[in-house]
Amino acid sequence: MQEAVKQALELKKAVYETYRDIQYIRFVDDSKIFKRGTIVIGDTIIPPYPKIGRLFVLEEGLKRFFKEPFYIEEKADGYNIRVIYYKERPLAITRGGFICPFSTDRLKDFYDFNEFFRKYPELVLCGEIVGPNNPYMELHPPYITFDVAFRLFDIYDLKENRFLLPEERYKIADTFQIPQVTRYGLYTTGDLERIKELVLKLNAEEIEGVVIKSAQRHLRYFKYATPIINIKDIEADVDLLLELPGEFFIQRIIRFALSSLELGYDGKEVTNRLGEIFIENFKKIVQEFKESGKISRQYVLYFNEEENIEEFLKLENRASDLIKVKLIGVEREQNKYKVTIEKTFLKATSRLYRLIRGYPLYD
Amino acid sequence: MQEAVKQALELKKAVYETYRDIQYIRFVDDSKIFKRGTIVIGDTIIPPYPKIGRLFVLEEGLKRFFKEPFYIEEKADGYNIRVIYYKERPLAITRGGFICPFSTDRLKDFYDFNEFFRKYPELVLCGEIVGPNNPYMELHPPYITFDVAFRLFDIYDLKENRFLLPEERYKIADTFQIPQVTRYGLYTTGDLERIKELVLKLNAEEIEGVVIKSAQRHLRYFKYATPIINIKDIEADVDLLLELPGEFFIQRIIRFALSSLELGYDGKEVTNRLGEIFIENFKKIVQEFKESGKISRQYVLYFNEEENIEEFLKLENRASDLIKVKLIGVEREQNKYKVTIEKTFLKATSRLYRLIRGYPLYD
Repeated sequence: MQEAVKQALELKKAVYETYRDIQYIRFVDDSKIFKRGTIVIGDTIIPPYPKIGRLFVLEEGLKRFFKEPFYIEEKADGYNIRVIYYKERPLAITRGGFICPFSTDRLKDFYDFNEFFRKYPELVLCGEIVGPNNPYMELHPPYITFDVAFRLFDIYDLKENRFLLPEERYKIADTFQIPQVTRYGLYTTGDLERIKELVLKLNAEEIEGVVIKSAQRHLRYFKYATPIINIKDIEADVDLLLELPGEFFIQRIIRFALSSLELGYDGKEVTNRLGEIFIENFKKIVQEFKESGKISRQYVLYFNEEENIEEFLKLENRASDLIKVKLIGVEREQNKYKVTIEKTFLKATSRLYRLIRGYPLYD
Repeated sequence: MQEAVKQALELKKAVYETYRDIQYIRFVDDSKIFKRGTIVIGDTIIPPYPKIGRLFVLEEGLKRFFKEPFYIEEKADGYNIRVIYYKERPLAITRGGFICPFSTDRLKDFYDFNEFFRKYPELVLCGEIVGPNNPYMELHPPYITFDVAFRLFDIYDLKENRFLLPEERYKIADTFQIPQVTRYGLYTTGDLERIKELVLKLNAEEIEGVVIKSAQRHLRYFKYATPIINIKDIEADVDLLLELPGEFFIQRIIRFALSSLELGYDGKEVTNRLGEIFIENFKKIVQEFKESGKISRQYVLYFNEEENIEEFLKLENRASDLIKVKLIGVEREQNKYKVTIEKTFLKATSRLYRLIRGYPLYD
């Protein structure tokens, strides 16, 4: 094992994890060399998927960061995984560096990764898992109305230690028919009006937003959200008003205001609903809480293998101190296990409990 | 000097401050013995005004914390000062432990503190400075429409080292005709419906809220806000959406929802305005920012003494790294100096500048 990995393990910047019969090392924190989300599996070190900067003002951002042409792609609303190939099995790794039992279980439904990886074992396929029946995200693209799907948005080459350029990736994805995020084509900063029109069209479709990727420079990526998605995010997460940092909500208000201004999006109707979204929805949460005594959400997930259900529940309860996951029920449906789980958000629950029971806050 | 004060000075938990010819020590941080906001002036140690817990649900809170009767008083919307007597001068100390040149300057307009303190030099008069022409707060009680006023809400006895009970204070304030916060009388937990009616009446008047004070136990105080004031707070501070912690805004939404629910306050009209308050107002801020390049507020203050204007500006610029204060103009008006100042909020300014100039955020 590399000396740097050993040191990180000693410093608890990295920890051992297990998925079924596979042991691997996960970086829980940035170390000197490796960043949080890196995993070491067998002899391979898989880097984390990098954070992408978010633009609040498109025109100034594009002019500031792009002289060269850039591709625009859909920012698909789901969660990020890296698909790797290990001992002839494709595995899905979350952003935090866990092998996700749910995502891994479902890979074979998305695409024949085995066939692809037999040819290109050195590639990491980075993509979004999208769709209503996922365990992490409330929102999903409007065109995925059931279960989950996979959409490739990046490829990392472990031999060359680099992310491919968009065109290199497009070629591979097209050749091997890997499902990809929607591509809107090549633009330059001269196309600002066309780009704004595109985002307004996506806004009308309630798509999350776009990712702008340099055609020439590796990892020169920026993301930009449609106005509407910010309000939909707030609406989807108002039950976690006492769980999420206040900035989660406030930043989305700022994004909505700035993007509406720049795009010339009126958004009056959405604006007028914001008070109701915050207040009437939160009142409902409080009323429900008085019955249930908890802030929780139910998820319906489809699994192929029973063992992955177990692994998934184990991992979820271990991965966060703030969330308790409970299995509600398992049914057979077609060739799948239809699994209903409940997540209880412990911070929101205890905070609301205390407020409602008359305990004071010192602010 | 006490050993504990010396130690705190060494540890930088306390620092020397100056107001005109007066030197004093201010606790910038909690030390072993003294809390942040304590000041040492001459041989006297003035404790800070304690934090008061806020109830989100009145019924449960009152039942939990009161067996005995309690007084209800107006929570006057302003800023908290402690008036002390030092070398035959009344001085106004802010919550943070500064002698406030503005508040101190204006004491003689509020009440004949000299006469009172000649009899009771051992008492600290704790009160709120309220009114539109103050340097700290955007909101003010509806019945103070010009300049500022003082309202006593507590008395600390330096000899007995205790805060007086409400009745003791009422007696002194009545006898010496010290202006007091509005008193709503004595209640018990059996009076819940009457209390709710009172708060609803105050809500209609757009009063900030109430403070509930045990008639028997020292410092058993709780505060409770009217629903409407939370939305007015948000409206007043939306220009600081990028300055204040997100919790500032989110907590007020939660307070509004919970108090509306409990009081049976419909508040639909207010709810419907919330989106506009957040978004349309923030858009205006952005448009203004494009002209001015800064997030700032103007304040008009009335001073008696020129030297206090200087002292005030010096203190304001020293007291916070986040705020820059500029003198815009001074005029004579009646027997006062009418002073216009501008505060620029540096965090909000630089954050908005970066967003608008196209710099990305990594979230």
